[in-house]
Amino acid sequence: MTSLPSSVRIREVGPRDGFQNEPETIATAEKVRLIDLLSASGLERLEVTSFMRPDVIPQLSDAEEVLNGVQRRDGVSFSVLIPNERGLERALGLRERFDEINVFLSASETHNRKNVNRSIEESLVGLERTLATAREAGLRCEGVISTSFGCPYEGKVPPDRIFAIAERLAAAGCEEVGFGDTTGMANPVQVREFFAATQKRLGGVELTAHFHNTRGQGLANILAALEQGIDSFESSFGELGGCPVPPGATGNVSTEDVVSMLHEMGVETTVELPRLLEASEAVQTVLGRPLGAHVLRAGPVDWHPAS
Amino acid sequence: MTSLPSSVRIREVGPRDGFQNEPETIATAEKVRLIDLLSASGLERLEVTSFMRPDVIPQLSDAEEVLNGVQRRDGVSFSVLIPNERGLERALGLRERFDEINVFLSASETHNRKNVNRSIEESLVGLERTLATAREAGLRCEGVISTSFGCPYEGKVPPDRIFAIAERLAAAGCEEVGFGDTTGMANPVQVREFFAATQKRLGGVELTAHFHNTRGQGLANILAALEQGIDSFESSFGELGGCPVPPGATGNVSTEDVVSMLHEMGVETTVELPRLLEASEAVQTVLGRPLGAHVLRAGPVDWHPAS
Repeated sequence: MTSLPSSVRIREVGPRDGFQNEPETIATAEKVRLIDLLSASGLERLEVTSFMRPDVIPQLSDAEEVLNGVQRRDGVSFSVLIPNERGLERALGLRERFDEINVFLSASETHNRKNVNRSIEESLVGLERTLATAREAGLRCEGVISTSFGCPYEGKVPPDRIFAIAERLAAAGCEEVGFGDTTGMANPVQVREFFAATQKRLGGVELTAHFHNTRGQGLANILAALEQGIDSFESSFGELGGCPVPPGATGNVSTEDVVSMLHEMGVETTVELPRLLEASEAVQTVLGRPLGAHVLRAGPVDWHPAS
Repeated sequence: MTSLPSSVRIREVGPRDGFQNEPETIATAEKVRLIDLLSASGLERLEVTSFMRPDVIPQLSDAEEVLNGVQRRDGVSFSVLIPNERGLERALGLRERFDEINVFLSASETHNRKNVNRSIEESLVGLERTLATAREAGLRCEGVISTSFGCPYEGKVPPDRIFAIAERLAAAGCEEVGFGDTTGMANPVQVREFFAATQKRLGGVELTAHFHNTRGQGLANILAALEQGIDSFESSFGELGGCPVPPGATGNVSTEDVVSMLHEMGVETTVELPRLLEASEAVQTVLGRPLGAHVLRAGPVDWHPAS
């Protein structure tokens, strides 16, 4: 049997990817409380907000207030999503409140155009400037490549195109490159082949997998990535967020489900599942609807019926 | 990379496991129409009903009418769930309308007692008589062992106990033994180790995996079983049915999601996914609520947004 990594790193993206996709903006104080609960669960990496233009993403227009409000905790690295140089400028006003930035673009021209109204090359040139400034400010940088496992407009994207983008991001200072399965098109065989090739092309860069559960394959894809030696993942508590394409589809694989599977398999994380579930129950109460995370609904594997 | 089987067999259990768990009984004519749609999708194995006592499972008290009503199709094997000799007697009145029987018991004493009010040994003795009669009638027999990957009352069940039960079932005439993850407690590492040991102990018996998606791991467990060479699975269209323990939990892994993952990985089935989705949409309409199957909600991987 293929051996799995003994431990993995998880970045919780719910406070950014999840909160920005909610139709009603969550109150700043609630965001701060939920992020503090997530920090307290042992998560070591937390994407707390983004510095998108407030008129584009009004749900996260309180980025400064959130960053100023959340508790800083030893061992918990905060990251913020940065769309461009102007966003970075805003973020740098609060430099001491976070540790990392995430920048993003799509592997598919059509998706990138629809998402940020630029060609991939235009995005890369802009991000290279942004990353240079961030590195000067001493920030760790992750570049996320959306639609890495398929694009709903263009279909499967040739891996060579993705590697070329990843190499540009790494050369511009990204210590970590994340590969997003933005609309849940990845399958486990593809995932293993993709990461086997990526490991050869991108030595020295931390490779992070970001899967969606759109077609129920989130955990199967994580298993395939683990078997290939990938030990860094992004997920979202409650199963919040993700791409609303196709309409009605679920999004990010849920952090509770990921942590439960990993721990049951004997793969360690820094997360305490019961405390993570407290954060998930809290966000479920705030949002006032049942969330999709399976372990949130069913309880952990060691759940027992009242006898 | 571990190679996967080139093709797998799927038994659709929704018309039995799903329909019996619906609070409102589905009309016989609707059941017949839905089963005919499932047969037309290319599924080669279909569990169509059970011969439980009508006062115990009123939702399936029309077993005779359903069996008489459904269309027989070349290449589609119909099975019925048989609880005991009396149930088999009823079923044998319609011998030419089905091909296989499924019998069941639990690997956990507590679960078996709660489910059928017998000890495991009492169940086995009764099933041995039932299987003997079924074999005389020329029926193919599958024995399903519930809680094979864990019991909510007793926790993990020692594999040796499961193997001993499986060997008794095989000796009594079961050509196929199914292992049920009744409340979704299995994890991929456990699944691979379990089937590796089972393959050694039960040579010559068809080994079938029946996973639930209670904690979101259904497809990850199927991937693990495939990697171990298992090529026979049970699932339920729409994500219908499954064990209502814990309350609110989802049940069987959905056939649409299984077929989608398999086909995307290049593993063949006899199922035409678009036709299967027609059956799922039909049952969703009959039940009048959104069902859990991911591919039913999101569409197949080759779904494209209207441009």
